[in-house]
Amino acid sequence: MGELTWGSFFLGFLNFKTEKYVIAENRKLGISFRVFQICVLAYVIGWVLVFKKGYQSREETVQSSVITKLKGVVMTNNTETGLRLWGPEDYVIPPTGEQVFFIVTNYIETPHQSLGFCAESPKVPDGQCVNNEDCAEGEAVVAGNGVKTGLCLNSTGTCEIHGWCPVETGRKPLEALLSKAEIFTIYIKNSVRFPKFEFSKSNVLDTGNDSYLKRCSYDNDLHPYCPIFRLGDLVSRTGHDFQDMAVVGGSVGILIEWNCDLDKDYSQCNPEYSFTRLDMNLNSSVTSGYNFRYARYYKDEAGENYRTLYKVYGIRFDIMVNGRLFSGLSTYVQSSSSPGSGWAPQRYSETCLKATPVLSWLCAYGHPFGRRTFAPV
Amino acid sequence: MGELTWGSFFLGFLNFKTEKYVIAENRKLGISFRVFQICVLAYVIGWVLVFKKGYQSREETVQSSVITKLKGVVMTNNTETGLRLWGPEDYVIPPTGEQVFFIVTNYIETPHQSLGFCAESPKVPDGQCVNNEDCAEGEAVVAGNGVKTGLCLNSTGTCEIHGWCPVETGRKPLEALLSKAEIFTIYIKNSVRFPKFEFSKSNVLDTGNDSYLKRCSYDNDLHPYCPIFRLGDLVSRTGHDFQDMAVVGGSVGILIEWNCDLDKDYSQCNPEYSFTRLDMNLNSSVTSGYNFRYARYYKDEAGENYRTLYKVYGIRFDIMVNGRLFSGLSTYVQSSSSPGSGWAPQRYSETCLKATPVLSWLCAYGHPFGRRTFAPV
Amino acid sequence: MGELTWGSFFLGFLNFKTEKYVIAENRKLGISFRVFQICVLAYVIGWVLVFKKGYQSREETVQSSVITKLKGVVMTNNTETGLRLWGPEDYVIPPTGEQVFFIVTNYIETPHQSLGFCAESPKVPDGQCVNNEDCAEGEAVVAGNGVKTGLCLNSTGTCEIHGWCPVETGRKPLEALLSKAEIFTIYIKNSVRFPKFEFSKSNVLDTGNDSYLKRCSYDNDLHPYCPIFRLGDLVSRTGHDFQDMAVVGGSVGILIEWNCDLDKDYSQCNPEYSFTRLDMNLNSSVTSGYNFRYARYYKDEAGENYRTLYKVYGIRFDIMVNGRLFSGLSTYVQSSSSPGSGWAPQRYSETCLKATPVLSWLCAYGHPFGRRTFAPV
Repeated sequence: MGELTWGSFFLGFLNFKTEKYVIAENRKLGISFRVFQICVLAYVIGWVLVFKKGYQSREETVQSSVITKLKGVVMTNNTETGLRLWGPEDYVIPPTGEQVFFIVTNYIETPHQSLGFCAESPKVPDGQCVNNEDCAEGEAVVAGNGVKTGLCLNSTGTCEIHGWCPVETGRKPLEALLSKAEIFTIYIKNSVRFPKFEFSKSNVLDTGNDSYLKRCSYDNDLHPYCPIFRLGDLVSRTGHDFQDMAVVGGSVGILIEWNCDLDKDYSQCNPEYSFTRLDMNLNSSVTSGYNFRYARYYKDEAGENYRTLYKVYGIRFDIMVNGRLFSGLSTYVQSSSSPGSGWAPQRYSETCLKATPVLSWLCAYGHPFGRRTFAPV
Repeated sequence: MGELTWGSFFLGFLNFKTEKYVIAENRKLGISFRVFQICVLAYVIGWVLVFKKGYQSREETVQSSVITKLKGVVMTNNTETGLRLWGPEDYVIPPTGEQVFFIVTNYIETPHQSLGFCAESPKVPDGQCVNNEDCAEGEAVVAGNGVKTGLCLNSTGTCEIHGWCPVETGRKPLEALLSKAEIFTIYIKNSVRFPKFEFSKSNVLDTGNDSYLKRCSYDNDLHPYCPIFRLGDLVSRTGHDFQDMAVVGGSVGILIEWNCDLDKDYSQCNPEYSFTRLDMNLNSSVTSGYNFRYARYYKDEAGENYRTLYKVYGIRFDIMVNGRLFSGLSTYVQSSSSPGSGWAPQRYSETCLKATPVLSWLCAYGHPFGRRTFAPV
Repeated sequence: MGELTWGSFFLGFLNFKTEKYVIAENRKLGISFRVFQICVLAYVIGWVLVFKKGYQSREETVQSSVITKLKGVVMTNNTETGLRLWGPEDYVIPPTGEQVFFIVTNYIETPHQSLGFCAESPKVPDGQCVNNEDCAEGEAVVAGNGVKTGLCLNSTGTCEIHGWCPVETGRKPLEALLSKAEIFTIYIKNSVRFPKFEFSKSNVLDTGNDSYLKRCSYDNDLHPYCPIFRLGDLVSRTGHDFQDMAVVGGSVGILIEWNCDLDKDYSQCNPEYSFTRLDMNLNSSVTSGYNFRYARYYKDEAGENYRTLYKVYGIRFDIMVNGRLFSGLSTYVQSSSSPGSGWAPQRYSETCLKATPVLSWLCAYGHPFGRRTFAPV
C-alpha cells in the first residue's frame, strides 16, 4: 500500500512481528496454569539449586601425593635354606614408599647358583628331549633357564643347558612362609590439593604428639585420621582371606575418595577408604596369583660371580586417589591465594555466619553479608 | 474496568495469556509441515535411540589390574667382559611384573671399578683442561664422574678426578648385544572390572588346561585370549624394526581397549590391542633412544667396596588400559551383586530372550517380559 | 461442520496450527527489537565463534612419553662411615629414568650388619621393657627390628632381639649430607602425540648439534626447548628452599602442559612448566618429609650374609603431562595420516594462506579455497 521507496524499505526493518495473545479469564484453567508454574519454580529452586546444589561449581582436578611405609619383621625358617629375617627393606618391593608396591608373603630360594652346565628343569616343555637331536646346540630353551649344549641327559629326560646352575626346583608352594605378615602395618599418608580453590587437606591427624601416630590404628569412627592399617585387616576388607591370598599372591586396590563441599565445615571433608581385590579368582591355576623372580649377585674370592635367586609370591597394592570439590563460592575463594606462591598450601578457617537462614543463604551466594573470612592457618 | 480491590488483584493471578492460533487448511503447507515432524521423530527414534543407543547408560570407571611376565634367556659374549647370561631377573627392570617395565637390549659393562684417582672421560665438556687452573680442587665435574683433584693430566687433556675408577669408556654402540631378545615372550594378564555393573572380564582364556598357556601365542583370530606376544612381533606392529630399536633403545606403548555392550552377548566383549612407538624418531642423536646406568656393589676380602657399572640400552613398555561399558539395563544389573561382598568378581551368563523384536525391546528396557537372568558362574 | 468422513479425517492431519502475528509499526519498539537481535548475533559470531573458537573440535587424548636423566656427582664425608661418592646410579631411585623418581639428599648408613642378637632400639615403643615378662620369646617387636628372645636388657631398657645387628641408631638428621645436590641437573624429555590428529611434538630442540644439549639450561625466554633444570632452581620455583627440604625430604610435582591450536602456527604450540610442592608442610614432625630404607647384601669368605643398611631422605619428583589440542580442521587433518603406519609420528608444515581474511576464514572451516597443505617433514 503505497510505493516501495528506499525509505519505506529501511523503515520496514523497524517493524516487528509479535504473537497475538488472548487473556483467558477462565478460573479453572488459570489455577491449573499457575500450579504448573509453581511446580516448575519449586523444581528449579528446591531440587536443582537447594538439593542438587546446581549453583555450585565443581572441581575435579586434584593434586595428590601418596607416601607409604611398612613396619614389622618376620623370621622364616626354611629347612633347606635356613633362618632368614624379613624386614621392610626386603619384603617391600620397590622399597621407595610409592603408591604401587608389592609385599612378599611367600618365596622359593635357590642359593649359590653359578654359571655352568646342568639339566634343564623338567617343567619347561621345550627342554624335554628323547635324544640329542632334540637339543640343538646354541639354541636358547624357549621359556627356559639357559642355552642348549647339544646333549640330552637320560637321567632327567631334559636337555643339558649352559646357565645358572643348579636350576630352580619349582614346585608350587602349598603354604605361605611369611604367614605372620598379616600383623605388618601399612601407613598411608595422602595429601590432596585442589589448585583452583587453594584448598588442601591430609589424611593424617595434624598433631604435635608424635607418639599418637606410633600407637594408633585406623578406625572409621574413633581414629579416622590415623591411616595405619594391619595388613590382614586390609585384605579381609576386600572379602578375601589373607592366609589364602598369601600362598600364591594377588593384587589389591585401595581407593581413597575425597568429596568435599566448601560450603560446609572444613571438618566435614573427610577421606573415605575402600578396598577391592583386582585380580579375578579364576579356577585356572596358571593365571592366578602374583609372583616374580629377582637375584642377588655376589663375587667369590676369585672374582667369579654367583647369585641367590628368589622367586617371590606376594600381594601388590595399588593406591588410587579421587577428589571432588564443590563450592558456590568460587570467586571469593580463588582470590584468597597468598601472593607470590603459585600453588602454596593453605588451610581454611571456616567462619561463615550460620546465625540465620537468610545470612547463610547470602553467604552461600558469596554476598558480603554473612560472608566467610578465610584465614590461612 | 471495575475498582482495583484486593480480590480482583488476586483473581488477576488466575488469568493467563495464551497465543492466538490460526488453523491453516492449506494442503501443501500441511504436507510439508507433517513431513518435517516425521523427520524429527525418525531422527530421535532411529538415530538417537536405535543407532546411537541413547537409552543406554555409559560407564567409564574401570578397575584394572595388569601383571606382566617375560620368558627367555640369551647368552652374550663380549670380547672385553666375557660370557654373560641374561634371564628375566636381569633384563627386566624393575623385575616386579608391573605395567611399566624396561627390557635391556644392549649394554656397556665397566667391571671392577673402585674408589680412587683417574682421568675424567674426554666426552665430558667440563672435564677438559689445558692446565691445572682449569681443575679447581674439590669441585665436582659438571655432568661428570667425580670430584676434581686440582691436577690436569696431559696424557688425556682432562682433569684428574676422585671417583669410581676406571671411568666408563663411552662409545655409542653400533649393534645390539642382545639382538636375540626378539624371541623373548611377554605375557600380559589384564583383568578389568566395572564396579557399577559388577561386570568383570580377563584377557586370559579361563581354561583348566595349564599347557595351553605354556605353548600358545597371540593371534587376533585364532587365539584372541592368549595374551603372549613375541617381543620382535610386538615391536614390528608399531611400524618399527626391532633390530634398529635394540641398538640405542626406545619407548613403546601398548593400549588395551575394552568396549563392552551388556545388551549383547558376554562373548562379544573382547579386548583390543594396539601398539605405538611413543618416543619420536628425531634426527638428533642426543635425544633419541633410552638408556640408564646402574651398579652392582661388592666387597673384597678387606671389606673395600668395588662395583660393576652397567649402562643399559633398551625398550620401555607402557601398558595403558581403557574401558567403556554400555547398557540399557543398569538398574537390573546393579541389583545382581552377591550379598556381603563389596566388589566381588562375578561373571554373567547372558540369557536375554531374543525370540521376537518386541520381547527383545522390552528386555532392553529392563521389563520383566523377555528379561535376562544373570547367573553368577 | 460437514460430515466426519475418513477422507476429512486424514485431510485433518494436513491442517496445522500457527500463531497469529501482529506487525507492529512502532518505530521505537522496532529499533529496540532490532538492536536486541544484533546483540544476540554479535554475541554468537563474535564471542562464541571468533573469541572462544566454538567451531573448533577439542582433543584431550594424549599419548605421552617421559624420559628423565640426572647428571652430577657429590662426595660425602661422614665421620663414622668415611668417604662416599654419590653418582646418578646411586642417588636416583629407581635409576630407570622414569616419570616418578626419588633423589637422595641425606642418609643414615648402618654398615656391616649381620644376623645375630642385640638390644632393640629405644625409639621403638614396643621394644621397651622393665623385666623379661615384657619380652615374650618368639614374638616380633611391633614396628621394630627383630624377634624378641625373652630377655630384657637392663643396660638399654629394651628387649634383646634376634635380627640384623647392630640396629640403626636413629637420630633425626639436622643437616643434609648431600647439600651440594642442588647443582645436579635434571633432563626431562617429553614427547606428546595426539593420535586423532596425527600431531606430535617434543619439548627438546630438534638440533643436529649435540653440544647444545650438553651445555644449555632451561630459560623460559631464551631456551624454551632446553629442558635441563638445576635441582636447586626447580625446588625454589615451588616457593620452598632446597636446603630446608633436603634435610628430611619432600615431594615435588612437575606439570607439563601442552595447549595447542592447530589453526595457529606449529611454532606456537609450546610446553608450559609449573612446579608445586605436593606434601603439606605440617607442624607435626612425624608426618613431614620423605624417607625409606634399603639394604645392600654381601657375603663374607665363609658364605655368611652381611649387609649395609641405608636410611635415605630425599625429594620425590612426580612428572604429570596434560595435553589439549584445538582445531577447526579436524576432517582434513585426520586424512593426512601416512598409509600403513597406525600411529606413526608426523610433523606439520603449516601453509594456510592468510592473504585475506576471507580466504583465511574459508581455510579455517576447511574449505578448499585457501586450504592448508600438510607436508610430513
